[in-house]
Amino acid sequence: MFYYIIDLLGTIAFTISGVMVAMNKRLDPFGIFIIGFVTALGGGTIRDVLLGIKPVTWLINSTYMYVVMGTVLFAVIFRDKLKYFNKSLFLFDTIGIGLYTVVGLEKGVAAGLHPIMCIALGTVSACFGGVLRDILCNEIPVIFRRKEIYATVCILGGVTYFILKFFSIESNIAFAIPIIVVIVVRLLAVKYGLKLPSVYKDEVDDV
Amino acid sequence: MFYYIIDLLGTIAFTISGVMVAMNKRLDPFGIFIIGFVTALGGGTIRDVLLGIKPVTWLINSTYMYVVMGTVLFAVIFRDKLKYFNKSLFLFDTIGIGLYTVVGLEKGVAAGLHPIMCIALGTVSACFGGVLRDILCNEIPVIFRRKEIYATVCILGGVTYFILKFFSIESNIAFAIPIIVVIVVRLLAVKYGLKLPSVYKDEVDDV
Amino acid sequence: MFYYIIDLLGTIAFTISGVMVAMNKRLDPFGIFIIGFVTALGGGTIRDVLLGIKPVTWLINSTYMYVVMGTVLFAVIFRDKLKYFNKSLFLFDTIGIGLYTVVGLEKGVAAGLHPIMCIALGTVSACFGGVLRDILCNEIPVIFRRKEIYATVCILGGVTYFILKFFSIESNIAFAIPIIVVIVVRLLAVKYGLKLPSVYKDEVDDV
Repeated sequence: MFYYIIDLLGTIAFTISGVMVAMNKRLDPFGIFIIGFVTALGGGTIRDVLLGIKPVTWLINSTYMYVVMGTVLFAVIFRDKLKYFNKSLFLFDTIGIGLYTVVGLEKGVAAGLHPIMCIALGTVSACFGGVLRDILCNEIPVIFRRKEIYATVCILGGVTYFILKFFSIESNIAFAIPIIVVIVVRLLAVKYGLKLPSVYKDEVDDV
Repeated sequence: MFYYIIDLLGTIAFTISGVMVAMNKRLDPFGIFIIGFVTALGGGTIRDVLLGIKPVTWLINSTYMYVVMGTVLFAVIFRDKLKYFNKSLFLFDTIGIGLYTVVGLEKGVAAGLHPIMCIALGTVSACFGGVLRDILCNEIPVIFRRKEIYATVCILGGVTYFILKFFSIESNIAFAIPIIVVIVVRLLAVKYGLKLPSVYKDEVDDV
Repeated sequence: MFYYIIDLLGTIAFTISGVMVAMNKRLDPFGIFIIGFVTALGGGTIRDVLLGIKPVTWLINSTYMYVVMGTVLFAVIFRDKLKYFNKSLFLFDTIGIGLYTVVGLEKGVAAGLHPIMCIALGTVSACFGGVLRDILCNEIPVIFRRKEIYATVCILGGVTYFILKFFSIESNIAFAIPIIVVIVVRLLAVKYGLKLPSVYKDEVDDV
């Protein structure tokens, strides 16, 4: 139950992030819907395709489609008001990447994969919806540029998950703690402006 | 038989649309072929991958490959003459999206999916070849911008299909009518310049 | 054994090509890693997804992930020195596309596909990592533009493979010869500046 509420909030936050990018690009209603959809469900779709889960999750569970449809409608109608929700949306988004990471991890574990591959799948689940969004909008994916720690917190959440598993921590806790790690680290990173170190010598640190 | 002729005409029209975009971008012969191929078969490929149909259809049925090869050759040789076929190509393209929509719908039904998912698969089959074409050519997909009703007619065709199915209409008719709906609505939409309503307040209606 | 060494060298060369493009675009460390990864393993991933091999190869065989990780680290640290390796890298890359082509061919044969489809899969394996790299970096894929014969040598390698198979040549030889054909033809093509013929009348031949 709690799981479903988090999943729902994450889907809503991801969809809205897609809608906002699509409206900046002045796409038409169909384009806005597709970008919202792809942002919310694209990461999980890539994960399912890589794993060979068939058909992909959202084709079987209609709830996702309805949530995306409702959210797109809401976001388009209240687009002028969305800025007042910025903080809530950021929080939902952060909770969302935490949850999506762990869902991806567990699908990898269920398929009997090596921990590194599970962490890769968790990161793909959480981050590649945004990558698809940016490709469809003809931008270099924002998570590949040096704005903010994003994928790194997913990897950190994944490492936490396997440390807990190694010590045979009970599965509910091993599920919850990594999500909390993702959320806390990302909130701290944004608050204190933490970024990955630059690999470019001529780059000043506040760029 | 009739089905195969329509399928063939759709594949040809889609391939030519890809070739024309690729030549505008001044791609080399290999690039032109790939863009033609992807435009014609990319939508169905995404549909098959989402459904987990393996391997994807065109790997098994060589006809598609031959048709695309022949069409690319034809389109490159007669590129200066293609403008005389503009109307025929538009018609083939319209017949093609009608057919591809219904083929996608029926694959969804065969997989036991919810009608909304079937309509999504129909729309993906018909429209996402063009989306891949535009991504490979480094453009925002044209169907996401407010040019013309395109995906909307596929959705409309899908709704028609399920209305007919609900009233237990015979399957040949349930197959043919939605295709006709797609064709007629699209022709009317182009003739009368119908578009989706804009969601942007500052947009004048003839933009 | 020999096979693994070639595979390793190919993966390294492809990863480095990805890292160099990513650093030209000034991506952050995570972006550099993803582009390196996708360049090296993206073609094989698309091949596996089209064939419905599940899960995709790199999820099961962790070696690829470690090689990419190590190579990215190496390439970032020694980025100023990479130009001294240009010739070796070009050679590894050429060996890599030869090998990837034949691996793709053999997976197609194992799936019982038509020779044309096997050649298509070989070409996809060898070339579409680079296509994904360019899409993620917001460029029109370089192999679609008229720079150099690249995909064409893969197709040539594929044709050679099936000619040898037709004459029931022993499988080790049928494996090795096409790789050598790809390598030799590509080296000659680069040395003598061979390109596909242009389809554009107004294009002078040295563009």
